Amino acid sequence: MTVVTVGEILMRLSHTALRRADGFVAHFGGAEANVAIALAGLGVQARHVTALPDHDLGQAAFDALRRYGVDPSFILRGAGRLGLYFYERGASLRPGKVIYDRAGSLFSLLPPSAYDLRGALAGADYLHMTGITPALGENARKLTLDAVRLAKEMGVKVSFDLNFRSSLWTEEDAFAFFEAILPSVDLLTASSDGLAVLGQENAGTDLKKAELAARAIAKKWGIPAVALTLRESVSANFNRLSALYLSDMVYTSRVYPVEIVDRVGGGDAFSAGLLYALLNREENPAEFAAAANAYKHTVEGDFLCVSSGEIRALMAGDVRIRR
Amino acid sequence: MTVVTVGEILMRLSHTALRRADGFVAHFGGAEANVAIALAGLGVQARHVTALPDHDLGQAAFDALRRYGVDPSFILRGAGRLGLYFYERGASLRPGKVIYDRAGSLFSLLPPSAYDLRGALAGADYLHMTGITPALGENARKLTLDAVRLAKEMGVKVSFDLNFRSSLWTEEDAFAFFEAILPSVDLLTASSDGLAVLGQENAGTDLKKAELAARAIAKKWGIPAVALTLRESVSANFNRLSALYLSDMVYTSRVYPVEIVDRVGGGDAFSAGLLYALLNREENPAEFAAAANAYKHTVEGDFLCVSSGEIRALMAGDVRIRR
Amino acid sequence: MTVVTVGEILMRLSHTALRRADGFVAHFGGAEANVAIALAGLGVQARHVTALPDHDLGQAAFDALRRYGVDPSFILRGAGRLGLYFYERGASLRPGKVIYDRAGSLFSLLPPSAYDLRGALAGADYLHMTGITPALGENARKLTLDAVRLAKEMGVKVSFDLNFRSSLWTEEDAFAFFEAILPSVDLLTASSDGLAVLGQENAGTDLKKAELAARAIAKKWGIPAVALTLRESVSANFNRLSALYLSDMVYTSRVYPVEIVDRVGGGDAFSAGLLYALLNREENPAEFAAAANAYKHTVEGDFLCVSSGEIRALMAGDVRIRR
Amino acid sequence: MTVVTVGEILMRLSHTALRRADGFVAHFGGAEANVAIALAGLGVQARHVTALPDHDLGQAAFDALRRYGVDPSFILRGAGRLGLYFYERGASLRPGKVIYDRAGSLFSLLPPSAYDLRGALAGADYLHMTGITPALGENARKLTLDAVRLAKEMGVKVSFDLNFRSSLWTEEDAFAFFEAILPSVDLLTASSDGLAVLGQENAGTDLKKAELAARAIAKKWGIPAVALTLRESVSANFNRLSALYLSDMVYTSRVYPVEIVDRVGGGDAFSAGLLYALLNREENPAEFAAAANAYKHTVEGDFLCVSSGEIRALMAGDVRIRR
Amino acid sequence: MTVVTVGEILMRLSHTALRRADGFVAHFGGAEANVAIALAGLGVQARHVTALPDHDLGQAAFDALRRYGVDPSFILRGAGRLGLYFYERGASLRPGKVIYDRAGSLFSLLPPSAYDLRGALAGADYLHMTGITPALGENARKLTLDAVRLAKEMGVKVSFDLNFRSSLWTEEDAFAFFEAILPSVDLLTASSDGLAVLGQENAGTDLKKAELAARAIAKKWGIPAVALTLRESVSANFNRLSALYLSDMVYTSRVYPVEIVDRVGGGDAFSAGLLYALLNREENPAEFAAAANAYKHTVEGDFLCVSSGEIRALMAGDVRIRR
Amino acid sequence: MTVVTVGEILMRLSHTALRRADGFVAHFGGAEANVAIALAGLGVQARHVTALPDHDLGQAAFDALRRYGVDPSFILRGAGRLGLYFYERGASLRPGKVIYDRAGSLFSLLPPSAYDLRGALAGADYLHMTGITPALGENARKLTLDAVRLAKEMGVKVSFDLNFRSSLWTEEDAFAFFEAILPSVDLLTASSDGLAVLGQENAGTDLKKAELAARAIAKKWGIPAVALTLRESVSANFNRLSALYLSDMVYTSRVYPVEIVDRVGGGDAFSAGLLYALLNREENPAEFAAAANAYKHTVEGDFLCVSSGEIRALMAGDVRIRR
Repeated sequence: MTVVTVGEILMRLSHTALRRADGFVAHFGGAEANVAIALAGLGVQARHVTALPDHDLGQAAFDALRRYGVDPSFILRGAGRLGLYFYERGASLRPGKVIYDRAGSLFSLLPPSAYDLRGALAGADYLHMTGITPALGENARKLTLDAVRLAKEMGVKVSFDLNFRSSLWTEEDAFAFFEAILPSVDLLTASSDGLAVLGQENAGTDLKKAELAARAIAKKWGIPAVALTLRESVSANFNRLSALYLSDMVYTSRVYPVEIVDRVGGGDAFSAGLLYALLNREENPAEFAAAANAYKHTVEGDFLCVSSGEIRALMAGDVRIRR
Repeated sequence: MTVVTVGEILMRLSHTALRRADGFVAHFGGAEANVAIALAGLGVQARHVTALPDHDLGQAAFDALRRYGVDPSFILRGAGRLGLYFYERGASLRPGKVIYDRAGSLFSLLPPSAYDLRGALAGADYLHMTGITPALGENARKLTLDAVRLAKEMGVKVSFDLNFRSSLWTEEDAFAFFEAILPSVDLLTASSDGLAVLGQENAGTDLKKAELAARAIAKKWGIPAVALTLRESVSANFNRLSALYLSDMVYTSRVYPVEIVDRVGGGDAFSAGLLYALLNREENPAEFAAAANAYKHTVEGDFLCVSSGEIRALMAGDVRIRR
Repeated sequence: MTVVTVGEILMRLSHTALRRADGFVAHFGGAEANVAIALAGLGVQARHVTALPDHDLGQAAFDALRRYGVDPSFILRGAGRLGLYFYERGASLRPGKVIYDRAGSLFSLLPPSAYDLRGALAGADYLHMTGITPALGENARKLTLDAVRLAKEMGVKVSFDLNFRSSLWTEEDAFAFFEAILPSVDLLTASSDGLAVLGQENAGTDLKKAELAARAIAKKWGIPAVALTLRESVSANFNRLSALYLSDMVYTSRVYPVEIVDRVGGGDAFSAGLLYALLNREENPAEFAAAANAYKHTVEGDFLCVSSGEIRALMAGDVRIRR
Repeated sequence: MTVVTVGEILMRLSHTALRRADGFVAHFGGAEANVAIALAGLGVQARHVTALPDHDLGQAAFDALRRYGVDPSFILRGAGRLGLYFYERGASLRPGKVIYDRAGSLFSLLPPSAYDLRGALAGADYLHMTGITPALGENARKLTLDAVRLAKEMGVKVSFDLNFRSSLWTEEDAFAFFEAILPSVDLLTASSDGLAVLGQENAGTDLKKAELAARAIAKKWGIPAVALTLRESVSANFNRLSALYLSDMVYTSRVYPVEIVDRVGGGDAFSAGLLYALLNREENPAEFAAAANAYKHTVEGDFLCVSSGEIRALMAGDVRIRR
Repeated sequence: MTVVTVGEILMRLSHTALRRADGFVAHFGGAEANVAIALAGLGVQARHVTALPDHDLGQAAFDALRRYGVDPSFILRGAGRLGLYFYERGASLRPGKVIYDRAGSLFSLLPPSAYDLRGALAGADYLHMTGITPALGENARKLTLDAVRLAKEMGVKVSFDLNFRSSLWTEEDAFAFFEAILPSVDLLTASSDGLAVLGQENAGTDLKKAELAARAIAKKWGIPAVALTLRESVSANFNRLSALYLSDMVYTSRVYPVEIVDRVGGGDAFSAGLLYALLNREENPAEFAAAANAYKHTVEGDFLCVSSGEIRALMAGDVRIRR
Repeated sequence: MTVVTVGEILMRLSHTALRRADGFVAHFGGAEANVAIALAGLGVQARHVTALPDHDLGQAAFDALRRYGVDPSFILRGAGRLGLYFYERGASLRPGKVIYDRAGSLFSLLPPSAYDLRGALAGADYLHMTGITPALGENARKLTLDAVRLAKEMGVKVSFDLNFRSSLWTEEDAFAFFEAILPSVDLLTASSDGLAVLGQENAGTDLKKAELAARAIAKKWGIPAVALTLRESVSANFNRLSALYLSDMVYTSRVYPVEIVDRVGGGDAFSAGLLYALLNREENPAEFAAAANAYKHTVEGDFLCVSSGEIRALMAGDVRIRR
């Protein structure tokens, strides 16, 4: 079982109050890389395709992937800058916030031809990409299209997470791009932001509404499988999470009430959990994916790196200390 | 729009367990200085009148005001000590606690004549002081009276926060002093502690009771405007906050459920929010002030320094991460 | 009033994510030592009997007991290793976890004859031990039996906390040992884990079920007093705690809802609170013990070190900041 | 006495090993802003002209200038990115290193016309700029020329620090630019890097060689005053620092042996010390400037913020603790 | 062997740059308490007499003494403040500095009659006090005289360290007090500051000069034993330390070149080393005391707590890692 | 080019004062693993053979190797404990110290047959082991012999670092073991400790003495190549390092004066530098190895992970900041 992910790796610099920050905690992350790392932790072969600067920080990002078992063979190195983002954790009624500082990164400047996509996709089961990459500019948009096209050509299934970031592009541009790519997608994942771009309203954790939205999308673009991450944001510290997965039938998870340690990367853990569940023919893919999402919210950093056993334990619901 | 604040600046030294502390986090604060900083952040001109030691720590306090845009021109410097307080954050059923170490501070020892109050008040809209200053001893009590008297004389409105600290003076002394000053007050703010000194019971977040209390106080001392911060302390980590503002009519805010990051300075953020709202003729001053109060509880340190837009966003209630 | 405790002291090394730990916070603790320290804080004479390595870390453990007022005169020093455990704090749906690294510790290798038990027990009111010590191997099992036997002989009451750690021994071995010792016990404390070993089901915070369990145990082994700590684990961050104490009559506490700062050592604070309450003829020993348990959950580290006044304040329920 | 500085403010992110960094300490700095802050600390009026993003980090940089007494009235705010640099402190035989991430910053993108240079220079004694600004691109180069031209026109003396950064432009481009600007300079400061661009060899701390170099430069470009910072780099932790100042006569300082706390910003402290010394007609400007340089090396962060008394104490040479 | 020390315990709050401190590291210390702790570490019975506030910080100071084995039985507790000092570590050419905030401390306000000096001195070999205590005001001055007088009466030898702090009293006042007390002193210790008060010049590490000074003092006041700590301050990071001890004959130590970790408390470690050496009839008391002094400079915090073996190892001079 | 290393990985827990440690910094290391990581950083294929517990900390050690590019395919996982050591950094005249807590580790308990040594050695150029492994007990001793024997059989050269740890075994046992293995060694590395076991005196940095020692050893045991790391320990912070390499001729390095950041792992960096130099036919292997050793002393942690370019830059001697 092998999954190939393509996308930018960023360094996140966190502080509880950006305006008063006298230092930052650093984590590496990126929607697709987070999926790769989570899959590697779950025992799935993961190859990540990206470009990283040839200085120490680029090397550190490279090391991070290697550390958690992702195959870095298809990572380019070159002169350029590493994308960054500054992150202020929210609390209670004060939402978290992000200052992106990723414009002009090496990844956003390289043309698709720079990468050995064919080599990376050889023998893979899935290609996983997200709506963030095409938002990074012309090169990245073309890279997304090329990778999806090549995957289809090589018989690799396409998983796409409909991440939408309003600070990177407009809803109109996003919709136009998504329209072009959706017919090639085998597995579509979306949260409320992505649903909005497709013209669907926020379902919160209402499974009925969610099912209607999933069916509408699947039908409109002929997508065989659609997964939705459902979230009710009670406060910046406390959310309720659920999931729906529609393929030949509808699967739903229960609602996970989560006291949040780190809000970032939940959707990526969801995608990884879903891909794992599908590759391993889990009985209820929605449950496993929702549990992975919930688990990620309890862990600091952009990615989740745990075994399937740990996710199953969370599903089982015993929160007593293990000693 | 200009507000003048007068009062002591303290250095707060925090640790989660004072008895086992091997170090402290330092913040500067003080009821009136907190109001000045919050107002400066909201775009109101703020001048703070105080006295600070001429050593590095006094300079650091001076720098802190300057950093956040408060006009420090009326700050005295001289030989003496800086008031301190040690703070242990509460958690759950264990309340936070404070060890004051402010006796003998430079501010408490200087006579009112040392300050250029007339210069500071020139052209100001409001003078804001609190019940903490008169609790600091004879000089500070006289300073409070002199400043209020001069403000009235110069046509500057008097805002007074009825803070009461039982560790600094008795309820009897406080009441006697408040009796003397209340007839000169244009805008009175109080929480349950202050209400108790005036013989009113804790209203929790009961708006009916709160209105009765406000009306009683306004009537008894002929105060044109009375604002109450309402609080239900569920645990040291979780409070419910609300507000009532009585002038020509009664304004009330909704109830904000707050997971607390830092308990200190909420009332000062309330005062600043209220003064901003009045100076800017906000539709519902109680709502803005309550939101400022709630916001402060989500931020570490003694003061709040955010734009009015950020407070309005909290009022709007969207707690999802912004990216 | 004097209580003697016998047991191993461990160094706990904590990190929020053991797999990614680049450092650890260190605390000393151990079920019985935690009780000794809590009792010393409450003003009860406490002597702790243990063995510690003669290197700097052993000295640090020795210093920790001394620091909080425990009499260290009966602590042995010698060549060997200090028991350790690594602790990952849980959050929300992710439970905390412990990696024990205590095998082969000096304490577990010494024979009972190495200790001056008779000297330690001279003049004591209670000997307090727990189910952890006999789980540490042959020597420690024999030490437990010897200490209990000697206490009975010397007229010292035996308090025993039925801690059960499935990672140290099997339920069968534990039951066999407990069977042997229970008839000598004057005061038995147990939580759901210990109840399970004795064949009783988890009562959660159901006082009816708890009373039945306590009565069954008291009757079966002829134990004059049985105390149960009752817990409902809502999440790793939030528990509800209660207690029942059965002697000549039944005492129950109210339910304390606790946002958890540190999960470790709650049961030991309970035991200390109970012993203090019994020695001081508190009206409701269950209430005091439950409050001590709840208090411990709000404090970082393995042990609780507060005065009885602070526990009474928690019982009184005022969570507002004290200044 | 007023000095105007023009230049970019960067956020420096430091770690002892960039490749393994899990977090960074943040400082604000920039060659010209460092001079402004140091001058403000010495009691000289300092205005800094720059552009900063309108997000929290830009505000933090703005706050930093304000905190230390620099007049921020001429700072532009707008959409864009803040220049960054990553810094790895050197140790012993391993030199410190810098990864610049400043391309595309707001400052580098704005045209000179965006700034109110005339307003900023009004009534000033000196304009101080450095060789870093023209290395930042076309806009910044033009800004440098415009500012210098306007200063000359308005009768403001021009101080220029011949900083050369090989990672920003080539020696040839630098030399071409310096040739154009040097005839307008009233006070030129240079270290060995700058000397090299002008074709002079590194003098180490050899005062003879240094004097020859200074005289050659002064003569060739008709510069009335030339100051050289002299340095012998024994290790990354230990340097020997000295200075020469040539105007109507030659002033030299003694050699300061310095165990280095923070290598960055020494030259800027030198420039500030020199400007202060000239504005205050110090007897030996070289000595004061060299002492400011040495002092900076003992203090963490990009800038020095001390009184002239503290610099004089360092010149006096008593290193015993003051208590 | 028992030594009684009398004096104030302070909390030291350290930061590398007081003006920019956002937090402080806390250590407890005090000239005489440092001696008590060092002696306890060396295996000498040590009783410390002082007064501490009855709040958490006072308890923390109490715990600190207990932790390191000092007998706290003669410590008073009461309402009042704890003396503090803020400490900025020096580096290279920048000296360390201290801001005292100890005025009005509980210790300085209590009369001598509050203490059980007779009980504390019972059975002691030495009373050790320093020149800091009489500098704290009338009460403390009287306490010093009373303690010395009582010691003489009870046959306890008097050890006195001629610490002089110019920020606490004048040289004239100090000299007047020292004149009164010196004839009662059995063992006098002094560094250059103390020597200056007695009219002797700084000997640096010149043993000849030091011997002359010691002999002059011994003769003038009839003191049986005089010890001098000799220091050459090369930089704030690097000193050369030596010692001379004059009794029936002259003992000198070699010169220890010390890279300084923490400058505070060196003289107290010297006093403790000297008392230990005299009580244990070490061959060369000066060598042992100088080594203790040097050792302290390599350890963070106000006091030294090591075994005599560790000091002897330092004397032996092997600096290779021990593993 | 491939090097295979075999040996235990430990977790090091560091604090500046073990007796007062309230937490530890964690690093992974181990003599042979350090060599593997350094080689991987230098671009040499490195496989490490070891056994690690199957819990999170074992996984963390596994991740650490992977992170820095070492091939972990031959690492066993199983139930057991991870070896630890506690490390107190020395300073000035106080040497660093180590408390080993590695007895009973999984690695020390497994028999040689558990490992796939043949697979690991396939195609390798060098097997590198050290004198630490045979000191860990019977299994590890046999593993050393088996690995060396198999390497000889498979035509893989044997590199052996004569590390001697007196806390793990006696000089007599070590000598007996070394006698058995030395005739099979192709490349022997030793520092003064190892030399002492072989009956050679400490050469300091005296190249003459060192050459005699190297020749004596080479001759006595018929070893084709002998390398010596030479060290003069001026203080715990400052050493002088040099090297001698004897094969067909004698190579010596210059003397590197090093201000020490981290003392641990210098010899391992030396071994890695030497193997790299030999594999790459560097002109002067001693110089490269000595520079690697010196470089390691300037970097925190157990291992060095830099490119050959960075080592060459250190050899070139320019310590000025690179920006």
